[in-house]
Amino acid sequence: MDLKKYTQEKRELIDGFFRDYFVREFNPPVLKEAMLYSLFAGGKRIRPILALAAYEACGGDAGDILPYASALELIHTYSLIHDDLPAMDNDDLRRGKPTNHKVYGEATAILAGDALLTEAFTILADRSFSAKVGPDNLLKTIMEIATASGLGGMVAGQVQDMLSENKAPDEETLSFIHKHKTGALLLVSVRIGPILFGSDNATLESLSEYGRCIGHAFQVVDDILDVDGNTEELGKTAGSDEKVNKMTYPRLYGLERSREIAGDLIHRAKTSIAHFSSDADPLREIADYLLKRRN
Amino acid sequence: MDLKKYTQEKRELIDGFFRDYFVREFNPPVLKEAMLYSLFAGGKRIRPILALAAYEACGGDAGDILPYASALELIHTYSLIHDDLPAMDNDDLRRGKPTNHKVYGEATAILAGDALLTEAFTILADRSFSAKVGPDNLLKTIMEIATASGLGGMVAGQVQDMLSENKAPDEETLSFIHKHKTGALLLVSVRIGPILFGSDNATLESLSEYGRCIGHAFQVVDDILDVDGNTEELGKTAGSDEKVNKMTYPRLYGLERSREIAGDLIHRAKTSIAHFSSDADPLREIADYLLKRRN
Repeated sequence: MDLKKYTQEKRELIDGFFRDYFVREFNPPVLKEAMLYSLFAGGKRIRPILALAAYEACGGDAGDILPYASALELIHTYSLIHDDLPAMDNDDLRRGKPTNHKVYGEATAILAGDALLTEAFTILADRSFSAKVGPDNLLKTIMEIATASGLGGMVAGQVQDMLSENKAPDEETLSFIHKHKTGALLLVSVRIGPILFGSDNATLESLSEYGRCIGHAFQVVDDILDVDGNTEELGKTAGSDEKVNKMTYPRLYGLERSREIAGDLIHRAKTSIAHFSSDADPLREIADYLLKRRN
Repeated sequence: MDLKKYTQEKRELIDGFFRDYFVREFNPPVLKEAMLYSLFAGGKRIRPILALAAYEACGGDAGDILPYASALELIHTYSLIHDDLPAMDNDDLRRGKPTNHKVYGEATAILAGDALLTEAFTILADRSFSAKVGPDNLLKTIMEIATASGLGGMVAGQVQDMLSENKAPDEETLSFIHKHKTGALLLVSVRIGPILFGSDNATLESLSEYGRCIGHAFQVVDDILDVDGNTEELGKTAGSDEKVNKMTYPRLYGLERSREIAGDLIHRAKTSIAHFSSDADPLREIADYLLKRRN
């Protein structure tokens, strides 16, 4: 299969959903403008694409859960806006563009993040988007997404990440940060498909194992790229982890061992879905891509 | 009826729910600590109490929707933490205590707000909390709460409020700010009861009119208190609106006319539920209280 074509088609679906959804005017206009600035700043849409691919791997039709998959990107985008704030990572660049607060100011950036997070749940709870999804499966999905995003997931990972700056790296803390900060939302991305589809437990567990492994690998690769990537390829400042002494894989294991770990994780991800049909080929290709990516 | 006793009982129910819900340990501990610092900083629990009272006015049993009512307080608390940030209102005091960022630092305060907002949806989507509520009514409730809190509600009001500092006040903008910044969440507070209870449209509309009027009055009284209250009673810095030239009712209409407007709104609120039984007495008493409150 042609992964580039596949992801391109899915990105168009997702972006089309966002364009339709946000076509309505809102007052004051600057809030929607700030939200869309970051939403359309060149994100790869990895989370919603994973959600659609996992749903297809269960035998579903991507269009049926497009709104719910897209909601994940709103949550991801909010987290980037808040992470970049002066009080947090204080980043000026994201995907090669000025960060949200550099364009709209800190107050509006905080509020644009808040509104993106909130809008994700407006979309998720909107029954008009799909008659094909049962309300109990949808509530389960909302609960999983919220759990993965907050106190027991992404936000906890971000707090631990901050607390660990300038500390000697240890495996347990590093694993916690990665599992929560990036892993939780990536894991839930592949789970919402089988949950919404009503898949059996074995299918859900196989996809969850895939999600845990690629989520883990994703962050290891991110850490590696911060060391051996360059600012132009990354679209964000390379070496920024080292600058603030972040707890990363290369710091704990060195570059070579980190690359091995990432490779092993991707192998495990693919093994966990080896018994799936060719409907899972996009998931297999995405796993390979996540290992080889340069940004 | 004894309003003080009623609200005291309801506050104990709500605080008990929070204590049970947050009894679990979370890592890193500081995140939950920062969330609970603001959650237990002496809030009056007006939104969840309104939700419980409106549910009772429909004939429901408050305990059945306690988690959903309490979720509103998490959203309210997150909004206060973010509003107080240096980039926004830059307030050092809230309810007589140092604001969240003064105690935990800006980064943790932003993230504690994010986590409170997110946790509201974890609770709302959790089917284990009540078997008595239908999943479709629950999804409708989640969507209403999210809509009232984000781009089409509270966050929009906050952005407009910031944009209007140092501008000449006009009725349309002032009305927009109040309707969105405070009004939307207060309105939804009285709507979730009838929605979850499955009330008829006429009941929902009467309670909504009550909610719109008290929501509007609440903010007018807030504006008045900022002028004629004092810092000790308020628990926050009196005169802070004037300091930054906020768009307020007293600035547009003067104090006396503002008091008349608030009085008329409370009268309208009570009229809209005049045909309800004595089950709606708490709502009637709350309306009177909101007019007379000194903080």
